[in-house]
Amino acid sequence: MRQLILPHSYGGAGALVLGAKESHYLTRVLRLAAGAEIVARDRDGKTRMMTIAAISKEGCTLLPVATAVHGEALPAFSGPAATLVLMQCLLKGRKEDDLVRQATEIGVSSITLVQSRHCVSDAKERAAGRIDRLNAKIREALQQSGSAISTRLEEQIIPLSQLPAWWAGRGKALFFHQSERDAQQSLTSIAQDLAIDEPVGILIGPEGGFSDEECRFLSENGFIPVLLKTNILRSETAAIYALSALQVLLNERN
Amino acid sequence: MRQLILPHSYGGAGALVLGAKESHYLTRVLRLAAGAEIVARDRDGKTRMMTIAAISKEGCTLLPVATAVHGEALPAFSGPAATLVLMQCLLKGRKEDDLVRQATEIGVSSITLVQSRHCVSDAKERAAGRIDRLNAKIREALQQSGSAISTRLEEQIIPLSQLPAWWAGRGKALFFHQSERDAQQSLTSIAQDLAIDEPVGILIGPEGGFSDEECRFLSENGFIPVLLKTNILRSETAAIYALSALQVLLNERN
Repeated sequence: MRQLILPHSYGGAGALVLGAKESHYLTRVLRLAAGAEIVARDRDGKTRMMTIAAISKEGCTLLPVATAVHGEALPAFSGPAATLVLMQCLLKGRKEDDLVRQATEIGVSSITLVQSRHCVSDAKERAAGRIDRLNAKIREALQQSGSAISTRLEEQIIPLSQLPAWWAGRGKALFFHQSERDAQQSLTSIAQDLAIDEPVGILIGPEGGFSDEECRFLSENGFIPVLLKTNILRSETAAIYALSALQVLLNERN
Repeated sequence: MRQLILPHSYGGAGALVLGAKESHYLTRVLRLAAGAEIVARDRDGKTRMMTIAAISKEGCTLLPVATAVHGEALPAFSGPAATLVLMQCLLKGRKEDDLVRQATEIGVSSITLVQSRHCVSDAKERAAGRIDRLNAKIREALQQSGSAISTRLEEQIIPLSQLPAWWAGRGKALFFHQSERDAQQSLTSIAQDLAIDEPVGILIGPEGGFSDEECRFLSENGFIPVLLKTNILRSETAAIYALSALQVLLNERN
C-alpha cells in the first residue's frame, strides 16, 4: 500500500477535493475505486485514513475515516533508520530530477544542492523553478514510497566553500572521491563507528569530480574522504550507491 | 581516467579511425587533445594504450602505443569483485536504458531481461531494437566507468516460468519482495554466506511487483526472498539499491 501526501491547505476535517491530475495517482496508478481507503500523511508526518467518497472526470472527493490514526500499518520499513543527509553537487536537468526522486524513495532526511568548481550545470540557471520542480518530485516520491521520512529540500544552493559552515559538524560528513588519497576509508569501516541516530552527511561530486584544491579544503574541514571499491560511477549513480549501501549497513546492523 | 572500448573490427595494429560521434567522447567529454594517451580495451577485456594522432571535424585517428599492456593503471577498482548477475523484469523505455547503464557502471557481470505477470512493458514490443539499444548503453557505460568487467546482455527475454531452468543453480539467487513473508532474510546475513567468486543472482520485480503465485513459484525453485529495511522502491531504484549494497558487503569484506 502507498500513501497520499495531503495538501497543506487541508485542515483534517471534512471533504478533500482533488483535481484530475492528483486523482490520477489514486484512480489510475493505484487503481482505487470509490469506497477504497488509503493512508494519508501530512507534511509533519502524521497519518490518517481517508476513504474515496466519489470519483468523476474532474477528480475525486475523499473523506476522513473516523477510526483515525493508522500509522504503522505501512509495509515500508519503520524501524530505527539511519539519518542520511545528501549534499549533491549540481547535475543537469533530468538527472537531478531522477536522483532527487530516488533519494527520497530511499528515505534521505534532506537534500542540499551544492555548487562546486566542475559543476556543468549553472546554479543561477532557472534557480527558482529548479527548487519548485524538485519539491514536486519529492512529493511524488513520498506518495509512491510510503516513506515515513519527510524528505526536505534545502531552499538555497550552497557553494562548496560554505558547506562546512552549513553542515556545522552535526555528525560525520563523507565525501566520495575515486583517487588514491591518503587515509581513505571504506564505507563498512565508517559505518561501524556510526550511531543509528547520528546524522551522516554524504557529499557527492559533480560529473567532473572534485578538484585537488576542493579535496584538500574538504579534508581540512573535517569531511572524510571515502574510496568505494567499485568502478568510476557517474555522479547520480554514486549518490544512490552510497545511500543504498550506507542504509543497509546501518539499518541491518541490529 | 576512462577507457575507450575498441570496435570489433580493429585488429590491434595500425591506425584506428573514429567518426565524429565516437570522437566526441574523446575530444569533448574527456577533453583530450592530439598527443594524449588513453587506455583502450577490447571486448575480451584486454587493454592497450592508444595515442590520439590527429583530430579533425570529421573525427580522429588513434595509433597504438608501443609500450603495450597497461591494464591495472585504471583507478577503477580491480581487486577481487563480486560476480553479480542481474535478472530484471521489463521496464518502460527510458527507465530500462538508465538502469542498464547504471548496472554496467557498477560492474554487473551480466543482465537478463525477464517477463513476469505484472510487467507493464511488452516483451514483443520492439524486441529486436530493444536488445541493440541496450547493448549500445552497455558499451557507453563500459567506456565511461573504466569497468574491468565486460557486462553481457542476454539476447533473449526470459519468461519468469523458465528462469529457474535458465539460472540452473549456478549460485544463490535472491528475489526482492516488500511484504511480510516467511523466513525473509536480510542482505547482510545472505552476504555473510557468499564466497566472492560465487555468482549471485539478483531478481528484481516489475513496477507492479510479483504476484503471490510467482513468489511461491520462485521460493519453491530455490530463489531466496529478501526483505530490504527500506521504503517501497520503484523497480529501477530497487535494482541499483540491491546491487550497490551487495557489492559493498562483498567487496569490502576483506
